[in-house]
Amino acid sequence: MDLYSGYINKLIEELAGLPGIGSKSAQRLAFHIINMPKSRVERLAGVIVDAKENVRYCKECYTLTDQDICPVCSSVNRDHGTIMVVENTRDLAAYEKTGKYKGVYHVLHGAISPMIGIGPGDIKLKELMQRLEGNVDEVIIATNSSLEGETTAMYISKLIKPTGIRVTRIASGVPVGGDLEYIDEVTLLRALEGRVEL
Amino acid sequence: MDLYSGYINKLIEELAGLPGIGSKSAQRLAFHIINMPKSRVERLAGVIVDAKENVRYCKECYTLTDQDICPVCSSVNRDHGTIMVVENTRDLAAYEKTGKYKGVYHVLHGAISPMIGIGPGDIKLKELMQRLEGNVDEVIIATNSSLEGETTAMYISKLIKPTGIRVTRIASGVPVGGDLEYIDEVTLLRALEGRVEL
Repeated sequence: MDLYSGYINKLIEELAGLPGIGSKSAQRLAFHIINMPKSRVERLAGVIVDAKENVRYCKECYTLTDQDICPVCSSVNRDHGTIMVVENTRDLAAYEKTGKYKGVYHVLHGAISPMIGIGPGDIKLKELMQRLEGNVDEVIIATNSSLEGETTAMYISKLIKPTGIRVTRIASGVPVGGDLEYIDEVTLLRALEGRVEL
Repeated sequence: MDLYSGYINKLIEELAGLPGIGSKSAQRLAFHIINMPKSRVERLAGVIVDAKENVRYCKECYTLTDQDICPVCSSVNRDHGTIMVVENTRDLAAYEKTGKYKGVYHVLHGAISPMIGIGPGDIKLKELMQRLEGNVDEVIIATNSSLEGETTAMYISKLIKPTGIRVTRIASGVPVGGDLEYIDEVTLLRALEGRVEL
Protein backbone atom coordinates (compact mmCIF):
# COMPACT_ATOMS: atom_id res chain seq x y z
CA MET A 1 0.00 0.00 0.00
CA ASP A 2 1.88 2.93 -1.30
CA LEU A 3 -0.56 5.46 -0.02
CA TYR A 4 0.49 4.99 3.57
CA SER A 5 3.76 6.62 4.47
CA GLY A 6 6.79 4.33 4.30
CA TYR A 7 7.15 4.73 8.06
CA ILE A 8 3.61 3.46 8.60
CA ASN A 9 4.13 0.53 6.23
CA LYS A 10 7.29 -0.52 8.01
CA LEU A 11 5.54 -0.36 11.37
CA ILE A 12 2.55 -2.36 10.08
CA GLU A 13 4.92 -4.95 8.62
CA GLU A 14 6.86 -5.41 11.86
CA LEU A 15 3.67 -5.64 13.93
CA ALA A 16 2.09 -8.12 11.51
CA GLY A 17 5.15 -10.34 12.00
CA LEU A 18 4.22 -10.86 15.67
CA PRO A 19 2.16 -13.93 16.62
CA GLY A 20 -1.61 -13.55 16.64
CA ILE A 21 -1.53 -10.17 14.90
CA GLY A 22 -3.08 -10.23 11.44
CA SER A 23 -2.70 -7.48 8.86
CA LYS A 24 -5.92 -5.76 9.97
CA SER A 25 -4.92 -5.60 13.63
CA ALA A 26 -1.41 -4.56 12.64
CA GLN A 27 -2.93 -1.57 10.83
CA ARG A 28 -5.18 -0.71 13.76
CA LEU A 29 -2.25 -0.98 16.18
CA ALA A 30 0.05 1.09 13.96
CA PHE A 31 -2.42 3.96 13.76
CA HIS A 32 -3.06 3.72 17.46
CA ILE A 33 0.67 3.94 18.17
CA ILE A 34 1.06 6.95 15.88
CA ASN A 35 -1.72 8.69 17.75
CA MET A 36 -0.27 7.95 21.20
CA PRO A 37 1.62 10.71 23.04
CA LYS A 38 5.31 10.74 22.11
CA SER A 39 6.36 9.87 25.66
CA ARG A 40 4.27 6.68 25.65
CA VAL A 41 5.64 5.66 22.25
CA GLU A 42 9.19 6.06 23.51
CA ARG A 43 8.34 4.14 26.66
CA LEU A 44 6.90 1.29 24.58
CA ALA A 45 10.00 1.14 22.37
CA GLY A 46 12.19 1.35 25.44
CA VAL A 47 10.61 -1.52 27.37
CA ILE A 48 10.84 -3.72 24.26
CA VAL A 49 14.59 -3.20 24.00
CA ASP A 50 15.10 -3.36 27.78
CA ALA A 51 13.24 -6.66 28.09
CA LYS A 52 15.28 -8.22 25.32
CA GLU A 53 18.56 -6.95 26.76
CA ASN A 54 17.97 -7.82 30.39
CA VAL A 55 16.00 -11.01 30.37
CA ARG A 56 17.85 -14.33 30.27
CA TYR A 57 17.39 -17.94 31.33
CA CYS A 58 17.60 -18.88 35.01
CA LYS A 59 20.70 -21.05 35.34
CA GLU A 60 18.74 -23.60 37.39
CA CYS A 61 15.28 -23.95 35.85
CA TYR A 62 15.63 -22.04 32.56
CA THR A 63 12.66 -19.78 33.16
CA LEU A 64 13.03 -16.23 31.89
CA THR A 65 14.36 -13.87 34.54
CA ASP A 66 16.57 -10.81 34.93
CA GLN A 67 18.75 -12.51 37.53
CA ASP A 68 21.24 -15.38 37.29
CA ILE A 69 18.96 -17.52 39.44
CA CYS A 70 15.22 -16.82 39.41
CA PRO A 71 13.28 -15.95 42.60
CA VAL A 72 11.71 -19.42 42.81
CA CYS A 73 15.03 -21.28 42.48
CA SER A 74 16.80 -18.97 44.94
CA SER A 75 14.05 -19.27 47.58
CA VAL A 76 14.85 -21.35 50.66
CA ASN A 77 11.13 -21.78 51.28
CA ARG A 78 10.67 -23.96 48.22
CA ASP A 79 11.07 -27.73 48.10
CA HIS A 80 14.03 -28.17 45.76
CA GLY A 81 13.48 -31.92 45.67
CA THR A 82 10.27 -31.58 43.69
CA ILE A 83 10.58 -30.36 40.11
CA MET A 84 7.56 -29.50 37.97
CA VAL A 85 8.36 -29.69 34.26
CA VAL A 86 6.48 -27.13 32.14
CA GLU A 87 6.64 -26.17 28.48
CA ASN A 88 7.20 -22.46 28.99
CA THR A 89 7.42 -19.57 31.44
CA ARG A 90 3.72 -18.72 30.99
CA ASP A 91 2.78 -22.21 32.22
CA LEU A 92 5.09 -21.73 35.20
CA ALA A 93 3.34 -18.44 35.92
CA ALA A 94 -0.06 -20.14 35.74
CA TYR A 95 0.91 -22.63 38.47
CA GLU A 96 2.71 -19.96 40.45
CA LYS A 97 -0.48 -17.90 40.51
CA THR A 98 -2.28 -20.70 42.35
CA GLY A 99 0.12 -20.01 45.23
CA LYS A 100 -0.16 -23.64 46.31
CA TYR A 101 2.78 -25.32 44.60
CA LYS A 102 5.84 -25.30 46.83
CA GLY A 103 8.35 -27.15 44.66
CA VAL A 104 10.54 -25.71 41.94
CA TYR A 105 10.20 -25.83 38.14
CA HIS A 106 12.00 -26.81 34.98
CA VAL A 107 11.09 -24.94 31.81
CA LEU A 108 11.56 -26.95 28.60
CA HIS A 109 10.93 -24.05 26.20
CA GLY A 110 8.89 -26.19 23.88
CA ALA A 111 7.52 -29.69 23.45
CA ILE A 112 8.58 -32.58 21.27
CA SER A 113 6.78 -32.32 17.95
CA PRO A 114 8.00 -34.55 15.11
CA MET A 115 5.40 -32.84 12.86
CA ILE A 116 7.26 -29.54 12.94
CA GLY A 117 10.67 -31.08 13.48
CA ILE A 118 11.17 -30.36 17.17
CA GLY A 119 13.06 -33.26 18.73
CA PRO A 120 14.23 -33.97 22.30
CA GLY A 121 17.48 -32.12 21.54
CA ASP A 122 15.59 -28.90 20.79
CA ILE A 123 14.13 -28.45 24.26
CA LYS A 124 15.84 -28.13 27.66
CA LEU A 125 15.74 -31.88 28.36
CA LYS A 126 19.47 -32.54 28.70
CA GLU A 127 19.46 -29.75 31.29
CA LEU A 128 16.64 -31.47 33.20
CA MET A 129 18.54 -34.77 33.28
CA GLN A 130 21.58 -32.95 34.65
CA ARG A 131 19.49 -31.53 37.48
CA LEU A 132 18.32 -35.02 38.38
CA GLU A 133 21.89 -35.93 39.34
CA GLY A 134 21.32 -33.88 42.50
CA ASN A 135 18.80 -34.67 45.28
CA VAL A 136 15.44 -34.98 43.56
CA ASP A 137 12.49 -36.95 44.92
CA GLU A 138 9.82 -36.32 42.33
CA VAL A 139 9.41 -34.93 38.83
CA ILE A 140 5.88 -33.74 38.08
CA ILE A 141 5.30 -33.50 34.35
CA ALA A 142 2.98 -30.58 33.63
CA THR A 143 3.33 -30.29 29.89
CA ASN A 144 0.12 -29.36 28.05
CA SER A 145 -2.61 -31.89 27.46
CA SER A 146 -1.99 -31.68 23.69
CA LEU A 147 -0.49 -34.31 21.38
CA GLU A 148 2.93 -32.65 21.71
CA GLY A 149 2.59 -32.26 25.47
CA GLU A 150 1.60 -35.92 25.92
CA THR A 151 4.41 -37.12 23.64
CA THR A 152 6.89 -35.07 25.64
CA ALA A 153 5.49 -36.38 28.94
CA MET A 154 5.85 -40.00 27.78
CA TYR A 155 9.35 -39.40 26.49
CA ILE A 156 10.50 -37.76 29.71
CA SER A 157 8.92 -40.42 31.93
CA LYS A 158 10.75 -43.16 29.98
CA LEU A 159 14.03 -41.27 30.37
CA ILE A 160 13.62 -40.74 34.11
CA LYS A 161 12.17 -44.07 35.24
CA PRO A 162 15.51 -45.95 35.14
CA THR A 163 16.93 -43.43 37.63
CA GLY A 164 14.38 -44.53 40.24
CA ILE A 165 13.10 -40.98 40.75
CA ARG A 166 9.30 -40.76 41.09
CA VAL A 167 7.67 -39.39 37.92
CA THR A 168 4.07 -38.12 37.96
CA ARG A 169 1.76 -36.40 35.49
CA ILE A 170 -0.84 -33.73 36.34
CA ALA A 171 -4.40 -35.06 35.96
CA SER A 172 -6.44 -34.34 32.88
CA GLY A 173 -10.24 -34.27 32.87
CA VAL A 174 -13.24 -31.96 32.91
CA PRO A 175 -12.19 -28.43 33.91
CA VAL A 176 -13.71 -27.12 37.13
CA GLY A 177 -16.96 -25.34 36.31
CA GLY A 178 -16.91 -26.94 32.86
CA ASP A 179 -20.29 -27.88 31.40
CA LEU A 180 -20.17 -31.48 30.13
CA GLU A 181 -22.33 -30.53 27.19
CA TYR A 182 -19.58 -28.37 25.74
CA ILE A 183 -16.61 -30.61 26.44
CA ASP A 184 -14.99 -32.69 23.70
CA GLU A 185 -15.29 -36.48 23.70
CA VAL A 186 -11.62 -37.14 24.29
CA THR A 187 -11.67 -35.10 27.48
CA LEU A 188 -14.89 -36.77 28.59
CA LEU A 189 -13.37 -40.22 28.09
CA ARG A 190 -10.18 -39.15 29.83
CA ALA A 191 -12.22 -37.88 32.76
CA LEU A 192 -14.05 -41.24 32.91
CA GLU A 193 -10.82 -43.26 32.85
CA GLY A 194 -9.33 -41.09 35.54
CA ARG A 195 -12.36 -41.31 37.86
CA VAL A 196 -11.64 -41.51 41.59
CA GLU A 197 -13.52 -43.09 44.52
CA LEU A 198 -15.75 -40.78 46.55
CA MET B 1 3.01 -11.20 39.02
CA ASP B 2 6.24 -10.91 40.87
CA LEU B 3 7.71 -14.07 39.45
CA TYR B 4 8.25 -12.55 36.04
CA SER B 5 11.20 -10.23 35.80
CA GLY B 6 10.35 -6.54 36.22
CA TYR B 7 11.42 -6.02 32.61
CA ILE B 8 8.92 -8.62 31.41
CA ASN B 9 6.15 -7.14 33.56
CA LYS B 10 6.76 -3.66 32.17
CA LEU B 11 6.68 -4.99 28.62
CA ILE B 12 3.47 -6.96 29.25
CA GLU B 13 1.91 -3.86 30.81
CA GLU B 14 2.75 -1.62 27.86
CA LEU B 15 1.55 -4.19 25.33
CA ALA B 16 -1.69 -4.79 27.23
CA GLY B 17 -2.36 -1.05 26.97
CA LEU B 18 -2.67 -1.32 23.19
CA PRO B 19 -6.13 -1.77 21.66
CA GLY B 20 -7.33 -5.33 21.09
CA ILE B 21 -4.52 -6.84 23.16
CA GLY B 22 -5.72 -8.54 26.33
CA SER B 23 -3.49 -9.62 29.17
CA LYS B 24 -3.08 -13.15 27.79
CA SER B 25 -1.97 -11.96 24.34
CA ALA B 26 0.25 -9.34 25.94
CA GLN B 27 2.03 -12.16 27.78
CA ARG B 28 2.33 -14.26 24.63
CA LEU B 29 3.65 -11.26 22.67
CA ALA B 30 6.12 -10.30 25.39
CA PHE B 31 7.68 -13.76 25.49
CA HIS B 32 7.76 -13.88 21.72
CA ILE B 33 9.58 -10.55 21.61
CA ILE B 34 12.10 -11.69 24.22
CA ASN B 35 12.81 -14.75 22.11
CA MET B 36 13.24 -12.80 18.86
CA PRO B 37 16.78 -12.10 17.59
CA LYS B 38 18.18 -8.89 19.06
CA SER B 39 18.34 -7.23 15.63
CA ARG B 40 14.62 -7.77 15.06
CA VAL B 41 13.76 -6.44 18.51
CA GLU B 42 15.76 -3.29 17.83
CA ARG B 43 14.14 -2.92 14.42
CA LEU B 44 10.68 -3.21 15.98
CA ALA B 45 11.48 -0.58 18.61
CA GLY B 46 13.03 1.61 15.91
CA VAL B 47 10.08 1.60 13.52
CA ILE B 48 7.74 2.42 16.39
CA VAL B 49 9.70 5.55 17.26
CA ASP B 50 10.31 6.45 13.60
CA ALA B 51 6.65 6.20 12.69
CA LYS B 52 5.66 8.45 15.59
CA GLU B 53 8.37 10.98 14.77
CA ASN B 54 7.87 11.18 11.03
CA VAL B 55 4.19 10.75 10.45
CA ARG B 56 1.94 13.81 10.48
CA TYR B 57 -1.35 15.04 8.98
CA CYS B 58 -1.54 15.95 5.29
CA LYS B 59 -2.16 19.72 5.20
CA GLU B 60 -4.95 19.21 2.64
CA CYS B 61 -6.92 16.12 3.61
CA TYR B 62 -5.56 15.31 7.08
CA THR B 63 -4.65 11.74 6.28
CA LEU B 64 -1.49 10.43 7.97
CA THR B 65 1.58 10.89 5.79
CA ASP B 66 5.30 11.60 6.05
CA GLN B 67 5.05 14.54 3.65
CA ASP B 68 3.44 17.96 3.94
CA ILE B 69 0.91 17.02 1.28
CA CYS B 70 0.03 13.33 0.85
CA PRO B 71 0.52 11.51 -2.49
CA VAL B 72 -3.20 11.60 -3.30
CA CYS B 73 -3.59 15.34 -2.69
CA SER B 74 -0.41 16.17 -4.60
CA SER B 75 -1.37 14.07 -7.65
CA VAL B 76 -2.43 15.96 -10.78
CA ASN B 77 -4.25 12.84 -11.97
CA ARG B 78 -6.87 13.07 -9.25
CA ASP B 79 -10.12 15.02 -9.47
CA HIS B 80 -9.68 17.67 -6.78
CA GLY B 81 -13.30 18.77 -7.17
CA THR B 82 -14.61 15.54 -5.65
CA ILE B 83 -13.95 14.98 -1.96
CA MET B 84 -14.74 11.70 -0.22
CA VAL B 85 -15.16 12.17 3.52
CA VAL B 86 -13.96 9.21 5.60
CA GLU B 87 -13.59 8.60 9.33
CA ASN B 88 -9.94 7.56 9.30
CA THR B 89 -6.88 6.75 7.23
CA ARG B 90 -7.69 3.03 7.19
CA ASP B 91 -11.02 3.77 5.49
CA LEU B 92 -9.18 5.92 2.95
CA ALA B 93 -6.82 3.01 2.33
CA ALA B 94 -9.78 0.64 1.84
CA TYR B 95 -11.19 2.82 -0.97
CA GLU B 96 -7.74 3.48 -2.39
CA LYS B 97 -7.17 -0.27 -2.69
CA THR B 98 -10.16 -0.52 -5.07
CA GLY B 99 -8.09 1.62 -7.47
CA LYS B 100 -11.31 3.02 -8.97
CA TYR B 101 -11.89 6.21 -7.04
CA LYS B 102 -10.28 9.18 -8.76
CA GLY B 103 -11.24 12.02 -6.46
CA VAL B 104 -9.49 13.14 -3.28
CA TYR B 105 -10.33 12.53 0.39
CA HIS B 106 -10.97 14.28 3.65
CA VAL B 107 -10.15 12.38 6.84
CA LEU B 108 -12.26 13.36 9.86
CA HIS B 109 -10.30 11.34 12.44
CA GLY B 110 -13.42 10.22 14.18
CA ALA B 111 -17.18 10.45 14.03
CA ILE B 112 -19.70 12.44 16.02
CA SER B 113 -20.74 10.41 19.05
CA PRO B 114 -22.67 12.18 21.79
CA MET B 115 -22.56 8.93 23.79
CA ILE B 116 -18.82 9.19 24.33
CA GLY B 117 -18.70 12.97 24.17
CA ILE B 118 -17.29 13.45 20.67
CA GLY B 119 -18.87 16.52 19.11
CA PRO B 120 -18.47 18.20 15.70
CA GLY B 121 -15.60 20.27 17.14
CA ASP B 122 -13.60 17.15 17.92
CA ILE B 123 -13.24 15.93 14.34
CA LYS B 124 -11.73 17.66 11.28
CA LEU B 125 -15.01 19.21 10.20
CA LYS B 126 -14.04 22.90 10.34
CA GLU B 127 -11.13 21.92 8.08
CA LEU B 128 -13.54 20.29 5.62
CA MET B 129 -15.70 23.42 5.47
CA GLN B 130 -12.60 25.51 4.77
CA ARG B 131 -11.74 23.26 1.83
CA LEU B 132 -15.23 23.78 0.39
CA GLU B 133 -14.44 27.47 -0.10
CA GLY B 134 -12.34 26.33 -3.08
CA ASN B 135 -13.63 24.67 -6.27
CA VAL B 136 -15.56 21.64 -5.11
CA ASP B 137 -18.34 19.94 -7.11
CA GLU B 138 -19.25 17.04 -4.89
CA VAL B 139 -18.74 15.76 -1.36
CA ILE B 140 -19.21 11.99 -1.02
CA ILE B 141 -19.82 11.03 2.58
CA ALA B 142 -18.25 7.64 3.25
CA THR B 143 -18.44 7.49 7.02
CA ASN B 144 -19.20 4.06 8.45
CA SER B 145 -22.70 2.63 8.37
CA SER B 146 -22.84 2.75 12.18
CA LEU B 147 -24.94 5.00 14.39
CA GLU B 148 -22.00 7.41 14.74
CA GLY B 149 -21.20 7.28 11.03
CA GLU B 150 -24.81 7.99 10.06
CA THR B 151 -25.11 10.82 12.61
CA THR B 152 -21.93 12.35 11.22
CA ALA B 153 -23.16 11.96 7.63
CA MET B 154 -26.46 13.72 8.43
CA TYR B 155 -24.69 16.50 10.29
CA ILE B 156 -22.24 17.13 7.45
CA SER B 157 -24.93 17.04 4.78
CA LYS B 158 -26.94 19.67 6.67
CA LEU B 159 -23.83 21.84 6.98
CA ILE B 160 -22.95 21.60 3.31
CA LYS B 161 -26.36 21.81 1.62
CA PRO B 162 -26.70 25.62 2.04
CA THR B 163 -23.46 26.04 0.04
CA GLY B 164 -25.09 24.46 -3.03
CA ILE B 165 -22.36 21.84 -3.34
CA ARG B 166 -23.65 18.35 -4.21
CA VAL B 167 -23.60 16.01 -1.19
CA THR B 168 -23.91 12.23 -1.63
CA ARG B 169 -23.69 9.20 0.64
CA ILE B 170 -22.23 5.81 -0.31
CA ALA B 171 -24.92 3.13 -0.60
CA SER B 172 -25.62 0.72 2.21
CA GLY B 173 -27.10 -2.74 1.70
CA VAL B 174 -26.22 -6.40 1.47
CA PRO B 175 -22.46 -6.89 1.05
CA VAL B 176 -21.37 -8.56 -2.19
CA GLY B 177 -21.23 -12.30 -1.60
CA GLY B 178 -23.24 -11.84 1.59
CA ASP B 179 -25.70 -14.61 2.43
CA LEU B 180 -29.09 -13.05 3.26
CA GLU B 181 -29.64 -15.67 5.93
CA TYR B 182 -26.82 -14.23 8.03
CA ILE B 183 -27.49 -10.55 7.51
CA ASP B 184 -29.17 -8.45 10.17
CA GLU B 185 -32.67 -7.09 9.69
CA VAL B 186 -31.66 -3.45 9.58
CA THR B 187 -29.29 -4.12 6.68
CA LEU B 188 -31.95 -6.19 4.90
CA LEU B 189 -34.49 -3.38 5.21
CA ARG B 190 -31.91 -0.82 4.11
CA ALA B 191 -31.13 -2.95 1.06
CA LEU B 192 -34.85 -3.14 0.25
CA GLU B 193 -35.36 0.62 0.58
CA GLY B 194 -32.33 1.27 -1.60
CA ARG B 195 -33.37 -1.17 -4.34
CA VAL B 196 -32.61 -0.10 -7.92
CA GLU B 197 -34.27 -0.87 -11.29
CA LEU B 198 -32.78 -3.70 -13.33
